[in-house]
Amino acid sequence: MNNFTFWSPTCFVFGKDTETQAGALVKRFGGSRVLIHFGGGSALRSGLIDRVEASLKAEGLACFRLGGVKPNPRSGLVYEGIELCRKEKIDFILAVGGGSSIDSAKAIAAGAIYDGDFWDFYSGKRIEQALPVGTVLTIAAAGSEGSPDSVITKEEGMFKRGASGDAIRPKFSVLNPALTQTLPPHQTAAGITDIMAHLYERYLTNTPEVEVTDRLIEALLLTMIHEGPRVIADPDNYEARANIMWAGMMAHNNSCGVGRSQDWNSHNIEHELSALYDCAHGAGLAVTMPAVFTYVMDHDVMRFAQAAVRVWGCQMDFAHPEVTAREGIEKLRSFLVSIGMPRNFEELGAREEDVPALVQALCRGDGREGSISGFVTLNEEDCEKIYRLML
Amino acid sequence: MNNFTFWSPTCFVFGKDTETQAGALVKRFGGSRVLIHFGGGSALRSGLIDRVEASLKAEGLACFRLGGVKPNPRSGLVYEGIELCRKEKIDFILAVGGGSSIDSAKAIAAGAIYDGDFWDFYSGKRIEQALPVGTVLTIAAAGSEGSPDSVITKEEGMFKRGASGDAIRPKFSVLNPALTQTLPPHQTAAGITDIMAHLYERYLTNTPEVEVTDRLIEALLLTMIHEGPRVIADPDNYEARANIMWAGMMAHNNSCGVGRSQDWNSHNIEHELSALYDCAHGAGLAVTMPAVFTYVMDHDVMRFAQAAVRVWGCQMDFAHPEVTAREGIEKLRSFLVSIGMPRNFEELGAREEDVPALVQALCRGDGREGSISGFVTLNEEDCEKIYRLML
Repeated sequence: MNNFTFWSPTCFVFGKDTETQAGALVKRFGGSRVLIHFGGGSALRSGLIDRVEASLKAEGLACFRLGGVKPNPRSGLVYEGIELCRKEKIDFILAVGGGSSIDSAKAIAAGAIYDGDFWDFYSGKRIEQALPVGTVLTIAAAGSEGSPDSVITKEEGMFKRGASGDAIRPKFSVLNPALTQTLPPHQTAAGITDIMAHLYERYLTNTPEVEVTDRLIEALLLTMIHEGPRVIADPDNYEARANIMWAGMMAHNNSCGVGRSQDWNSHNIEHELSALYDCAHGAGLAVTMPAVFTYVMDHDVMRFAQAAVRVWGCQMDFAHPEVTAREGIEKLRSFLVSIGMPRNFEELGAREEDVPALVQALCRGDGREGSISGFVTLNEEDCEKIYRLML
Repeated sequence: MNNFTFWSPTCFVFGKDTETQAGALVKRFGGSRVLIHFGGGSALRSGLIDRVEASLKAEGLACFRLGGVKPNPRSGLVYEGIELCRKEKIDFILAVGGGSSIDSAKAIAAGAIYDGDFWDFYSGKRIEQALPVGTVLTIAAAGSEGSPDSVITKEEGMFKRGASGDAIRPKFSVLNPALTQTLPPHQTAAGITDIMAHLYERYLTNTPEVEVTDRLIEALLLTMIHEGPRVIADPDNYEARANIMWAGMMAHNNSCGVGRSQDWNSHNIEHELSALYDCAHGAGLAVTMPAVFTYVMDHDVMRFAQAAVRVWGCQMDFAHPEVTAREGIEKLRSFLVSIGMPRNFEELGAREEDVPALVQALCRGDGREGSISGFVTLNEEDCEKIYRLML
């Protein structure tokens, strides 16, 4: 196991009706002039934004609204939010929504007190300072409610890139599973896929002797395999929603990823898909993961066999571990299809003729130098082959 | 799943040589006049206390030492520590050692800024304020490095009782698995048992639909079953020590216990044993747990069967789930014996003639009213039967 530091100071308030505590929580963590940042549509129509704002006003806090966050959140709205924060002397940002709203809020929080262009943080500069952020989560997926990470798409060039720093870890996150009950099935399934991807990206490691984190990751994958189909069959199943919501947080606050190298190639390869086609990140991952895993399987067959046996219940083929390893990948693919996720480019709405452009953006875009690294380092030829496995 | 709040803001610095960061960490978390609180013996002889003190002094911090913490830490030294803190205007307490040193440090931290008797907190009053505490952990066992809990034995009457409060969660904990390599095998095994008990106490729940936390608990138990024998066979196995150390923290920071009722009857029943005989808490738990589980098994046979199948690899007897449930308990007992733990009163050094006194202290001592509650409520008759199952 590698040396590591783990610090996850977010206060999680979990359960039914917990969004009514938003005002008290913002106050506890020092906010007085609050930007409520959200997508729009369902959060507005359901009255959630009004309920949250009422909770803030009941504590005497000044409220400002900035809606309009889109899936795969864009840099344009971040710049707008930064301006608004400076103009209104905002001292706390409350994201209401899923990963997109939270990631956009984190970008605004970092940018509002930074003299340069906030995109610097998405080009490699670590975030050291930010306005405090809180969240009211409405989608179990991105894990951004407990993570120090944010992903934004730069409209100029449509590059999707991540930034990180303890300063953007939410001070608190309100997790009410009931708020996720109204999600369309496709979004629920995409969230499940994203959570499973966060687990696989940590599972694919080159660090030996990581039994405890292996087992924790497997536990969370087993949870998703049990609860995923239940919630697809019955969207109102609060208990299944609750288990998925906590698993989604645990999958990405890194308590199960410490002390080990991680992968993140599936995420990188997918980001170009959702940047170009504006598809759901989870849907893109459903197509990407089996292709990537099939391509890199030979790098560590026993690791994939371990997942197949421990997570997918396969019988180990001791004479031919690669058979078991492949069976585990196929079970993952079948599971994702069973909950309604696409299996290939066509179902995702991607086009074969875009492969060269995808490879170019992935391996050369925004300062990259011809490859991406993770469990295996992949050059342009590798990435082209992987995209073609998705056809 | 029940509603819950989870807040674990401790900064964990994990790995080789990390104790050299103690000074920088105390400074980061605001300390300037530091009480170094420890047991003595090995921590002094190995030079660890000197190394830690050197790290503090390098940051310009004033250091005061208070050693002498014993296993099952006593109230007497806590009172002494409180006096010292007031006299020397201590503003940070750094525990160096295992759960005993940390629990004693937490009690001092709460008592030093409290006008009344610190024992109030161990009689049910919640700890709301305390001096900041940091830890350098030398034993993987109690989980106190990441918990809001402390257990102290009151010398007058020899009652062993717990207190709790977010204010005594450590600001940071330094976890260097190499520091545990010099532990005698009995202490290592007792630590493994304590960690497993923290998991079982959470596993035994009356809350339905808790798949995610069930799976996380099972994952950590599987880790202990894999790594425990490895570290007993080879005490210098750093990797096994590392996996156990992180599992020990995760077992007790409550990330795997949220949203579910918990048991803690095995701990309560054991506390009277270690209070009376001054045995290792883990050794007492090794004798206590199989007896308690056997006694309460019928309350929820399927829960014990689930542990038997998922954790202990038993084949489910679908016609007779109680057979599988019992097999799981026997496998736990055999495992604990295999790592060197006692199996009964005699091996523990306890005496049959003390059973009435143990029951009296357990069910009537220090304000209790004839029973203890948890997974099952146990009255004096139940507790007597359970102690007699240990003979």
